[in-house]
Amino acid sequence: MARLAILAGQGALPQQIAAAHPDALFVHFEGIEVARPANQTLSASYERFGEMFDGLQRAGVAEVVFAGGLARPALNPANFDAKMIQLAPGFMAAMQGGDDGLLRAVIAAFENEGFAVRGAHELVSGLTAQPGLLAGPDPTEIDLKDAARARAILAALGPLDVGQGAVVADGQALGVETAQGTDAMLRFVAETPEKLRHRARGVLVKAPKPGQDLRIDMPAIGPTTIAAAIHAGLAGVFIAANEVLLIDRDETLQAADEAGLFLLAEAR
Amino acid sequence: MARLAILAGQGALPQQIAAAHPDALFVHFEGIEVARPANQTLSASYERFGEMFDGLQRAGVAEVVFAGGLARPALNPANFDAKMIQLAPGFMAAMQGGDDGLLRAVIAAFENEGFAVRGAHELVSGLTAQPGLLAGPDPTEIDLKDAARARAILAALGPLDVGQGAVVADGQALGVETAQGTDAMLRFVAETPEKLRHRARGVLVKAPKPGQDLRIDMPAIGPTTIAAAIHAGLAGVFIAANEVLLIDRDETLQAADEAGLFLLAEAR
Repeated sequence: MARLAILAGQGALPQQIAAAHPDALFVHFEGIEVARPANQTLSASYERFGEMFDGLQRAGVAEVVFAGGLARPALNPANFDAKMIQLAPGFMAAMQGGDDGLLRAVIAAFENEGFAVRGAHELVSGLTAQPGLLAGPDPTEIDLKDAARARAILAALGPLDVGQGAVVADGQALGVETAQGTDAMLRFVAETPEKLRHRARGVLVKAPKPGQDLRIDMPAIGPTTIAAAIHAGLAGVFIAANEVLLIDRDETLQAADEAGLFLLAEAR
Repeated sequence: MARLAILAGQGALPQQIAAAHPDALFVHFEGIEVARPANQTLSASYERFGEMFDGLQRAGVAEVVFAGGLARPALNPANFDAKMIQLAPGFMAAMQGGDDGLLRAVIAAFENEGFAVRGAHELVSGLTAQPGLLAGPDPTEIDLKDAARARAILAALGPLDVGQGAVVADGQALGVETAQGTDAMLRFVAETPEKLRHRARGVLVKAPKPGQDLRIDMPAIGPTTIAAAIHAGLAGVFIAANEVLLIDRDETLQAADEAGLFLLAEAR
């Protein structure tokens, strides 16, 4: 099997992949705090992509995975190596398209060097969910209708690259995720005046954008999402089966169960 | 000319229409606080539509306008007159579709009684804006691109009846209006982490939903919108020419001018 390198971003995901792939090279970056697993490690810098590509090749790496949240440490162009001087203008242009644009350009740079770029969900079984009810009670008929409306909103916005989540309560849209992310949207929904809720508590639907490259910014939910959904008064959460990362799965499901909040994975 | 009745909801709009139409009958409702203009007035109740229709007919009214924000005072079915007993089930069903659904049903009830239902913007010149820059500096090229993206978001959501506003900053969607309204969305945008703003401050686009009946929930901006836009750090506001109500026009334009926030009406 081709050797894997884990390019470690923020959060617990890099460690989860490392535990499932003990032979993988764990690459940590200057300026990003990460816990080091037992794996072999490589220290790298966003300022010296050439040095990093050389290190990966020397270690026999053929596949890489971008794992965890994106961070943008301040870069000093004076420290760039030759490869980074060559890549930087393209990255800067791509950055105007937001985080997704930058990540797409970084993926292309790795592919141009001959590395295959994998998605985290392909590398660890159980990171995503099979279709079915994962926690809590069954959704009501109104919840199912609200979920259909939230999915319609996400589908309409899909080509526009707006967000991965929407909240609907009894037919009323109460939140559409934008660049601030799901938790910020749920904090907004929590402040909804009671009279706008009508008969239902509302549901969150979280799914990749249509056609989204799951190697980039894969949608994820975890204990903080569940806590935010509870705080927002929601009845439950629908996620796309196989396409949404479950962070700290056991803790996530337990939190939902304890609050009586359903968590349901839907096939698409 | 057919006699007009102003069905007075909340806010300053009913008085503005009354001042422009001194012969109009001013209808105020039990449970809704409104200032009374110099016009002839009729006291009415949401519980007794039959009595109200009779009163309008006796006063020679042929046209009505719903003016100002919708309020939903608690109704006591024991007080319903015969007409309201007949209408209530339809109103209750329509209410499940939100405020717009209810207003559509109420408009249909007036039309069934032979009244023509007008839009406020048809009755007072200057309530909406002609195309052009109304206040503040010219938008930048990035502002214009952001406005185009916000319009694309609103167009995509149009058939789904989600909201009338969206905020985009340097290509990133930062807010999509939902049932909580424009000011709530702008409070949410104000909390955006600075790093998500990239190069631009962002713009609000406010326009009717595609195909929206402007006699219902016509989009409106006023001094509080401008204050919220300033608080959200925006560069400016784009409104649809002729289709967005300017509440307290002079105060609105002055607030934008003083803050250096542009307000631009666009033809569609």
